[in-house]
Amino acid sequence: MSTEGLSLNLGTVRRQWNLRQAVEACARHGIAGAAPWRDQVAETGVGEAKSVFAANGIRVTGYCRGGMFAATDAAGRQAAIDDNKRMIDEAAELGAECIVMIGGGLPAGSRDLAAARAMFAEGLAAVLPHARAARVPLALEPMHPMYAADRGCISTLAEMNDLCDALGDGLGVAIDTYHVWWDPNLAREIARAGSRIIGHHICDWLVPTRHLLTDRGMMGDGIIDFVAIRRMIEAAGYRGVQEVEIFSDHWWSRPGDEVLRVVMERFRTVCQA
Amino acid sequence: MSTEGLSLNLGTVRRQWNLRQAVEACARHGIAGAAPWRDQVAETGVGEAKSVFAANGIRVTGYCRGGMFAATDAAGRQAAIDDNKRMIDEAAELGAECIVMIGGGLPAGSRDLAAARAMFAEGLAAVLPHARAARVPLALEPMHPMYAADRGCISTLAEMNDLCDALGDGLGVAIDTYHVWWDPNLAREIARAGSRIIGHHICDWLVPTRHLLTDRGMMGDGIIDFVAIRRMIEAAGYRGVQEVEIFSDHWWSRPGDEVLRVVMERFRTVCQA
Repeated sequence: MSTEGLSLNLGTVRRQWNLRQAVEACARHGIAGAAPWRDQVAETGVGEAKSVFAANGIRVTGYCRGGMFAATDAAGRQAAIDDNKRMIDEAAELGAECIVMIGGGLPAGSRDLAAARAMFAEGLAAVLPHARAARVPLALEPMHPMYAADRGCISTLAEMNDLCDALGDGLGVAIDTYHVWWDPNLAREIARAGSRIIGHHICDWLVPTRHLLTDRGMMGDGIIDFVAIRRMIEAAGYRGVQEVEIFSDHWWSRPGDEVLRVVMERFRTVCQA
Repeated sequence: MSTEGLSLNLGTVRRQWNLRQAVEACARHGIAGAAPWRDQVAETGVGEAKSVFAANGIRVTGYCRGGMFAATDAAGRQAAIDDNKRMIDEAAELGAECIVMIGGGLPAGSRDLAAARAMFAEGLAAVLPHARAARVPLALEPMHPMYAADRGCISTLAEMNDLCDALGDGLGVAIDTYHVWWDPNLAREIARAGSRIIGHHICDWLVPTRHLLTDRGMMGDGIIDFVAIRRMIEAAGYRGVQEVEIFSDHWWSRPGDEVLRVVMERFRTVCQA
């Protein structure tokens, strides 16, 4: 199988390469797309980043990451909304195919997850007209429940599908195997998501997992059944890229070209069937 | 408020004290009950353990832990069933008020969570007549999804409620705040569980959490809203003890009497309202 359906989340090689080096490496290895993080784009400059992607013929399959609307007060919530609007403008300039949006954590001192979730919904509603006008789809990404307190208060695809139902056009979902593999309702919610699926990220869950943030696994090194999840997602109608997103002290310590060789080999041998 | 509704899971002080020392400490501190682990009972002997609890006037509020029926082959599954039956006999001899049952992880080499979940249901069905005959309730405990691969393939209270529906009398659920705080369906599923709630464990989620197994938090040190969850559980009709179960390199390194003093103070100031 080819790797034409492969994209690289640039967080995977953020310690080895800057944006230009990483995008050039994608072109060199025959990877079709890449998804930069906001700090990587800021370091390079939005206009220059756009040129680098264009010059190398690399699609910008996503832009990481927005959302995180919960804050302790109204001023903080408005600041998050304003910042998300700026990010939408950057995504439009870059030609990013979507922005990945996560729930964000609890505001400082809060123990009220329901309130944080409500603030996420309110923030989304506030930026959605801006995103529609800019023609930048927002890909709502549920995060593994171990991040619910400090990164992603929305843990299930069901909740993100509910938000798509409630708020309408301009929203989709991003399904990252690392975040959803455990979900007993995964098959049902992938089928429900259907054409709303606009992102499919791949990363393995290691046993044991030694760190909550930086011990994610290369496909094949853990326990996720990539083929089974890919089949569900394709049965729902998705035909887009699979984006490799691995945060790992191990892989960050390896030469970038080695990481990309292993990514491509595993994509062929583990993620296709 | 008193601490008469408090029980101590003996895993909380397993590095400081053996079973006798821990049970005597519960009596000294005015803690009503305790829940030993199987290795702690084995070290002491079942008959001797029973005598220690009786002599100190300490209830055996639970016995940890059974379940974990998934295995690579039929012989392995039968061995798990046989072992759970032995554990039921031990619980009956101890006078334990329930056995805590967890899903168990994936069998070696497997990536099939659905199959592991089915093996848990089959194992439960196989031991349930034995548990009913011994009058030992089985408390089904969903575990946090970060344990789904290697400890508890059943992550949600909804799934455990479904198993109670399917398999009937002799089953209940144990609700541990550490495992369920993130669940968007928690309120609904606690109300649904109703009189099936036979265990309520308390432990906080720290931010950041530095280790998946041994960085659990003392109540009040993390982000869990204990009062909100307790109110849901009491509204469902539960009137039993709250069992403190904290696995923590920090608290294991402190003198046992200090741990119990802090547990009791936090139980009064953080868990009551």
